Amino acid sequence: MAMASSFKNLIFFLSFSQILSIILTHQYHPLDPLTPSELNQVRTIVRGSNPIPHHNLTFQYVGLDEPDKPSILSWLSNQSTKNPPRRASVIARIDKKTHEITVDLSTHSIISDRIYDGHGYPTLTFEEQTAANKLPLTYAPFVASISKRGLKLEEVGCGSFSVGWYGEKRKTNRVVKVMCYYLDGSVGIYMRPIEGITTIVDLDEMKITGYSDRLMVPVPKADGTDFRGSKQKPPFPPRLKEITVFQPKGPSFTISGHSIRWANWEFHLAFDMRAGPIISLASIYDLEKDERRRVLYKGFVSELFVPYMDLTEEWYYRTFFDAGEYGFGLCAVPLEPLRDCPENAVFMDGYFTGQDGTPGKIPNVFCVFERYAGDVMWRHTEGAIPGKVIREVRQEVSLVVRMVSTVGNYDYIVDWEFKQSGSIKATVGLTGTLEVRGSKYTHKDQIEEEVYGTILAENTIGAYHDHFLIYHLDLDVDGDANSFIKARLQTTSVTDDRSPRKSYWSVVSEKAKRESDAKIQLGLKPAELLVVNPNKMTRVGNYVGYRLIPGSVERALLSDDDYAQLRGAFSKYNLWVTPYNKSEKWAGGLYTDQSRGDDNLAVWSLRNREIENKDIVLWYTMGFHHVPYQEDFPVMPTVSSSFELRPSNFFEYNPVLKVKPPKDIKWPNCSTLIMA
Amino acid sequence: MAMASSFKNLIFFLSFSQILSIILTHQYHPLDPLTPSELNQVRTIVRGSNPIPHHNLTFQYVGLDEPDKPSILSWLSNQSTKNPPRRASVIARIDKKTHEITVDLSTHSIISDRIYDGHGYPTLTFEEQTAANKLPLTYAPFVASISKRGLKLEEVGCGSFSVGWYGEKRKTNRVVKVMCYYLDGSVGIYMRPIEGITTIVDLDEMKITGYSDRLMVPVPKADGTDFRGSKQKPPFPPRLKEITVFQPKGPSFTISGHSIRWANWEFHLAFDMRAGPIISLASIYDLEKDERRRVLYKGFVSELFVPYMDLTEEWYYRTFFDAGEYGFGLCAVPLEPLRDCPENAVFMDGYFTGQDGTPGKIPNVFCVFERYAGDVMWRHTEGAIPGKVIREVRQEVSLVVRMVSTVGNYDYIVDWEFKQSGSIKATVGLTGTLEVRGSKYTHKDQIEEEVYGTILAENTIGAYHDHFLIYHLDLDVDGDANSFIKARLQTTSVTDDRSPRKSYWSVVSEKAKRESDAKIQLGLKPAELLVVNPNKMTRVGNYVGYRLIPGSVERALLSDDDYAQLRGAFSKYNLWVTPYNKSEKWAGGLYTDQSRGDDNLAVWSLRNREIENKDIVLWYTMGFHHVPYQEDFPVMPTVSSSFELRPSNFFEYNPVLKVKPPKDIKWPNCSTLIMA
Repeated sequence: MAMASSFKNLIFFLSFSQILSIILTHQYHPLDPLTPSELNQVRTIVRGSNPIPHHNLTFQYVGLDEPDKPSILSWLSNQSTKNPPRRASVIARIDKKTHEITVDLSTHSIISDRIYDGHGYPTLTFEEQTAANKLPLTYAPFVASISKRGLKLEEVGCGSFSVGWYGEKRKTNRVVKVMCYYLDGSVGIYMRPIEGITTIVDLDEMKITGYSDRLMVPVPKADGTDFRGSKQKPPFPPRLKEITVFQPKGPSFTISGHSIRWANWEFHLAFDMRAGPIISLASIYDLEKDERRRVLYKGFVSELFVPYMDLTEEWYYRTFFDAGEYGFGLCAVPLEPLRDCPENAVFMDGYFTGQDGTPGKIPNVFCVFERYAGDVMWRHTEGAIPGKVIREVRQEVSLVVRMVSTVGNYDYIVDWEFKQSGSIKATVGLTGTLEVRGSKYTHKDQIEEEVYGTILAENTIGAYHDHFLIYHLDLDVDGDANSFIKARLQTTSVTDDRSPRKSYWSVVSEKAKRESDAKIQLGLKPAELLVVNPNKMTRVGNYVGYRLIPGSVERALLSDDDYAQLRGAFSKYNLWVTPYNKSEKWAGGLYTDQSRGDDNLAVWSLRNREIENKDIVLWYTMGFHHVPYQEDFPVMPTVSSSFELRPSNFFEYNPVLKVKPPKDIKWPNCSTLIMA
Repeated sequence: MAMASSFKNLIFFLSFSQILSIILTHQYHPLDPLTPSELNQVRTIVRGSNPIPHHNLTFQYVGLDEPDKPSILSWLSNQSTKNPPRRASVIARIDKKTHEITVDLSTHSIISDRIYDGHGYPTLTFEEQTAANKLPLTYAPFVASISKRGLKLEEVGCGSFSVGWYGEKRKTNRVVKVMCYYLDGSVGIYMRPIEGITTIVDLDEMKITGYSDRLMVPVPKADGTDFRGSKQKPPFPPRLKEITVFQPKGPSFTISGHSIRWANWEFHLAFDMRAGPIISLASIYDLEKDERRRVLYKGFVSELFVPYMDLTEEWYYRTFFDAGEYGFGLCAVPLEPLRDCPENAVFMDGYFTGQDGTPGKIPNVFCVFERYAGDVMWRHTEGAIPGKVIREVRQEVSLVVRMVSTVGNYDYIVDWEFKQSGSIKATVGLTGTLEVRGSKYTHKDQIEEEVYGTILAENTIGAYHDHFLIYHLDLDVDGDANSFIKARLQTTSVTDDRSPRKSYWSVVSEKAKRESDAKIQLGLKPAELLVVNPNKMTRVGNYVGYRLIPGSVERALLSDDDYAQLRGAFSKYNLWVTPYNKSEKWAGGLYTDQSRGDDNLAVWSLRNREIENKDIVLWYTMGFHHVPYQEDFPVMPTVSSSFELRPSNFFEYNPVLKVKPPKDIKWPNCSTLIMA
């Protein structure tokens, strides 16, 4: 969940000269995100047709209106051809209505403007959250509630919480619930909730439409809640000696515009307000075939569903969609060199649109670096050959693309890692601070009723919750037409005398014909999960493919008919496969705020479309059931999960067999100098 | 499985002067492995009482006879007290009988010598494998078989395969099946099996007792099987630029004898012929309590079970126990600096006993290094406080202990990683080469019958198989008396009107009373798996504990009554808990070769002993179902799996909150120098 992030306002908005310099230096790829100047054009065009003050206009989302896949691919095959038309997709609120506007940037015109009047609302802007969060502070009943609690108003900070949907039949207004916290000597604001008070704010009216002060609960004390190094008191642990990654000749990758080349990989990296990093057109060079082979047309985090398990009045509705409601990209934070990313990292900036359409910049939104963690890519010591010992070892050096999105209290570290062996590994690290509930209890023994969490400190309950991240993985294994194969490991009993064995397992491959064949709950039955190109085989006759090696097998524990679960139904399965459909990008639906579960992955896939030998999309749900422990207080050591897309009969043989290890570095006598 | 590793013979046996120097510099801890001089003493004492040539004597295993846990702990609490008696445990074959001998090194005497006449045999020595592997080469029928195939005898290399047990009632002799491979222009020996021939060798007689040449199968050709960099032909991929880990002031850890201190951790690291690395007495310093707190009394890989899924005559019996049959430590290989371990690694040697009792050395058997992979230990950007942005980030720096054991074709990379946050992470990487079956088929379309594997190349089938590693984890969380808690995440339906929600999950903790309560198959139902100290609580009343965060949920697919499965029954569950029992070290039984499943973890736990508030041992099975792919040919990119032991209400709050990041390194202008 996200609190009003005031720091986006601190991130300077761009001057014309800056914009100009960016245009001039910019290299153009059809999937490049909109540049600041393009964002400004969009602003001018949309505001032009909806002049302010006549209209009440806010930009909720602006991003590239991506050209269709065929035109991207044809451009790719012959880049001398004219680029596809450059278009922007805008979601705006105009006079309390949601507009879907497509702007053509070449003709400087609006080519479509359609009002959406279905269920759900667009992503919240930072500005409206900031405005909403200020309202209680001047609202008499709230001021009274604060003084009744003996708290100082000037030490109160608030956040806007999406309200979800709990079965209301009629259309509900676009509201948030503003919940407040207490600073007073700490910046560990989420550790000091002011429980019992709920302020409902109508975002379109920007005024308070509901208020309740239900109960008084002690605010957890400030002691121990501040996570700043500068505020820690002794004793301190001994400091570790300096350690760094060192590349005397610089990195082995090149970045031109948004295209990145490293080792045998090439891919495009774009920033999107909603999705954050979008990996596109990842292809790998096949040394033997002397050709680039397509692997991943597009990969991104489509949604994050974070339901809490607390039924109390101030908590039951906390079932957040961090991408659809708050913008996973919009919540990205500037990465800190040497801390968030190692010494050898290269950084890229990202651009978003403010509520009034003005472009803003997130400096260092991505970092790209080569990782050598001391691991082994492959090795073998051969001692079986009389008279000789043969040893060959290759270090694992990989390329990492990183973004950190801080959705309020949580920090999500999102890594895409490319390996020379052809694997793509995605990792998410969860850190930041918990969302805790204030409580009268100071010791577990006092607890009488259900508290829906772990007592972490005096008056502090860490609420049970889940995180479900779903990845959109549009694999194009050596082309678009792919099939999904579930290769089950099946035990067979041996009852005849063909062998002294009584059992063994073999692989039973099932090609998924329709969507219903590919909804999978992991952990129950072992299987290899493959995306193959049924039209291409290796020399010995195996389908070329990639397989998903899942990391987590966690999935939804809520009942199917629960309102939040209807909205986040993608979390019921760890794996889904759908036929490619440009409009099916957001697994929780396009309009997630107050959505009713009528437009999302679970609903799309009910059509049970054919997925065999088609352009298919794999959806993987990475789940975390989070039972908090005291170690998570006041800030959490990172917990992470990964999955891997690994070539599986894609290459004729080990693609890194011929890789030469990087040269060893000869150390001069300047290590003394180095600390001088 | 292991081929006769001739290179152990190349590893020089030690001269007296070398031994002396080692004694003199050696610091003595009751858990230190036997020194070369002690190994020599053992040899002298045992041979003294069984003079050769009167007796036929071979040393199958020699290791420290570990003092009892209480005496270790009392020594630990007061190290000025006299060390417990120094004893060696010997398993020898004397006149075709298995002897269990305990040698007291202070009194230079044998304090017990008992003959074991149950089922199963001790670990094979390298020398007897080497001898067995040579026999076919001078055995007329074998020579005839080779020439019949048109192969050159001088290009044939053989390996000794353990035969397992397939229901034989009477006692069987101590035999191996010798299987042979063809070199002839390649060192990828396992890629060139000579199928159809089986030679049975009696190891005690050291002669051939059975022979069959059942069928002729083309030997896969040499092309593409050689994994040596020097033998690869162009085209080559571009070489990556130099990259290294750099610690200008050296490492932050200290090694004294076998005790390692780093950050808040202290532990003992020993080498054992059978287990490889043994981590003991791992304790962590608690800054707030200003005391060292016990975490892991002992951790090691107890067994590796590797059943193949091929029913054919030459394959059905291949159900290997890599620790009990071949010695996971004995198969360890010297680590290559800058390849197996990074630039900043420190190496340690290991000592084993040759068949005649002479100590041998494995140089660089362990490496120890600090890892900084560019990851984040914890972070948070706080943007919710009006007017300021707060960002705190700490890099993840951890300590890794590594060994590589090459059990024939497979290379197992075994890591123990210690984190400042209190986590212990164990990772195993599988690489090396596959065990393949020769085949007449050159294309998948030709295949008519079941081939029990993947066609990887012409005439080459990669056989389906499993790897099950079971870890012995004697956790002593803040003391010996611990309990195992399975905290199930249980969904509750909300049918009343107490909340608009229809469901939520909560945590239902079940304290395991007996062994049967703690046999767990993972992946079916979500649960937190905790080892707690029920006698110690945090200030707010939570039991102090550690939890297991499993990586893999794979487990046995063989039927319970299959002979191999009876022997490797530990693989049926991912998790077991037993009360501590000094004799219960080897999950597959002490005498694994030809064992009959009558002495192993599954059998011990049938006693269903009490495990509540007792000194308990956690056993975790890490499983890999290996379906080979062409990328695994001729050498496999590493596949790895991990699990983590993570503090869970062990600390009052985040133990790394106060950690200061290592100082940044100021780079001088000598990076140019550096490549000079």
